[in-house]
Amino acid sequence: MILRIDISGLVGLLWLATIMGLLGCSRHGENSVDPLPSWNEGPTKQAILDFVQSVTDSSSEWFVPADGRIATFDNDGTLWSEQPVYFQLQFALDRIKALAPQHPEWRQRQPFKAVLEGDLQAVSESGMRGLLQIVGASHAGMTTSEFEQIVQEWITTAKHPRFNRLYSECVFQPMLELLAYLRANGFKTYIVSGGGIDFMRPWAQRVYGVPPEQVVGSSIVTQFEMRDGVPVLMRYPEIEFIDDKEAKPVAIDKFIGRRPIAAFGNSDGDHQMLQWTAAGEGRSLMVLVHHTDAEREWAYDRASHIGRLDKALDEANA
Amino acid sequence: MILRIDISGLVGLLWLATIMGLLGCSRHGENSVDPLPSWNEGPTKQAILDFVQSVTDSSSEWFVPADGRIATFDNDGTLWSEQPVYFQLQFALDRIKALAPQHPEWRQRQPFKAVLEGDLQAVSESGMRGLLQIVGASHAGMTTSEFEQIVQEWITTAKHPRFNRLYSECVFQPMLELLAYLRANGFKTYIVSGGGIDFMRPWAQRVYGVPPEQVVGSSIVTQFEMRDGVPVLMRYPEIEFIDDKEAKPVAIDKFIGRRPIAAFGNSDGDHQMLQWTAAGEGRSLMVLVHHTDAEREWAYDRASHIGRLDKALDEANA
Repeated sequence: MILRIDISGLVGLLWLATIMGLLGCSRHGENSVDPLPSWNEGPTKQAILDFVQSVTDSSSEWFVPADGRIATFDNDGTLWSEQPVYFQLQFALDRIKALAPQHPEWRQRQPFKAVLEGDLQAVSESGMRGLLQIVGASHAGMTTSEFEQIVQEWITTAKHPRFNRLYSECVFQPMLELLAYLRANGFKTYIVSGGGIDFMRPWAQRVYGVPPEQVVGSSIVTQFEMRDGVPVLMRYPEIEFIDDKEAKPVAIDKFIGRRPIAAFGNSDGDHQMLQWTAAGEGRSLMVLVHHTDAEREWAYDRASHIGRLDKALDEANA
Repeated sequence: MILRIDISGLVGLLWLATIMGLLGCSRHGENSVDPLPSWNEGPTKQAILDFVQSVTDSSSEWFVPADGRIATFDNDGTLWSEQPVYFQLQFALDRIKALAPQHPEWRQRQPFKAVLEGDLQAVSESGMRGLLQIVGASHAGMTTSEFEQIVQEWITTAKHPRFNRLYSECVFQPMLELLAYLRANGFKTYIVSGGGIDFMRPWAQRVYGVPPEQVVGSSIVTQFEMRDGVPVLMRYPEIEFIDDKEAKPVAIDKFIGRRPIAAFGNSDGDHQMLQWTAAGEGRSLMVLVHHTDAEREWAYDRASHIGRLDKALDEANA
């Protein structure tokens, strides 16, 4: 397996083949002062430690003042698993099932019929139009506060089909350590994900230590309205922004207004975010999580429908 | 002059008639421990001090943990002046003049002809279509980095026509003190302005102590592109988002993901932001800056084209 480490170049992507698979439980660190005890020793871990050292040491030529230490993380497949389906899709499917008693017509109408019958193949065949109907029915038609409650209930009760754990426990322990390590070194850690911004915010602080204002993601349209004299934000079934691929640097610029010096992803959807990070002045760190552990998690890359890693892998190898 | 102070109610807007006019120079505080030395003594100042005390005292029933202490500030007319024209409009007009030698056709074409001839009446008569042409020509057609440089140069050289000071010096000293006072009490201070997000970010940290990621504003479309092998974000002459009126609570929800407990504005464009803040649980502080000092700044409200204060004033009076 190729390990490419070039943390200061314009196009160098650091390829992690070694960190995957620890789901929800920590490996015991041999050294109590090791900030990354779940990481295998080796050049990848060393490169991360060296990078952090170089940008935080005020005598280093690569020193970056604390307020410029911005690190962005993809979520699906980078901080938590994205198999066998994106967890937010599972949330939407669960939500359709929960709402079905109020919508008897769904038993005869695609894509809802397929969802209720558990026919994922038919759901998939309903295409983008079907997916938008599912998103609309599950994510819109309520206030932002109501949606937050719905997400909170799901994330604290629904279980992953393979691991039989809460989805918020199907996170990568090495990445939790990395988040904490960066923050301990003055970094501001952001999530920049194709996932829904309002789907992640209710639990990102508890699970990742990332507050709502540091979560960037896809969104649907919301509108300010008065309801019984009380101002609310209503959620409408219309996509506003898809935070993926070329849109990630755009979102980073819009929400953060500074270029990251470290970025972490796992798929071609993160490629442009890593390129944007690499093109900054000074030293930068770009990391691709490569899913290679079929035993403890999943192994997938170029041929996967979920989290396809192809072009970015080529660039990492180059 | 009516002074309405109701900092905990659902619809109470705190109306400041007393703080205006100190442009760029500090009044001497009689008391060295006074955190707001430029503020007149009285119920308004006292209400602010009481509010901050009540949400920061852990034994108070209104206590709010530090990470929930979100305060949002309008910019034009709240933190800096907005007369005789919005400063960003002046930036656009100056930019058109600077670019004119490269565009000889502008001498014959409206609205550019009017700009070059200094005919503000004709600029105004060109309406929204003319304004968008001016914005497009002055704010788009370059990378985000290039635009940042252009703004930096203008903000450090252009002078206000009445005060003959840099625009960044035409800020309200009492509000600078308020920003600093809130931050010293654990608040995260945000700008939520109808002004351009990319126009404010280059100088907001230096002038207001507000970092780029805490500046929310209007935006035009940007796109990720490769230029000579280097990734850039190009600015296009298309409005993406106008951060005004009903859109301010939408933007607050999108960018911050939490409801403010304190909000500061000066016009009907801030009305919904104050309503949204007031509708939160717990105690909240809503402040309207009322421009009443024609001698040291300007006096205007209901009849003004800039910073019209009408409906929100009614609500404050009620």
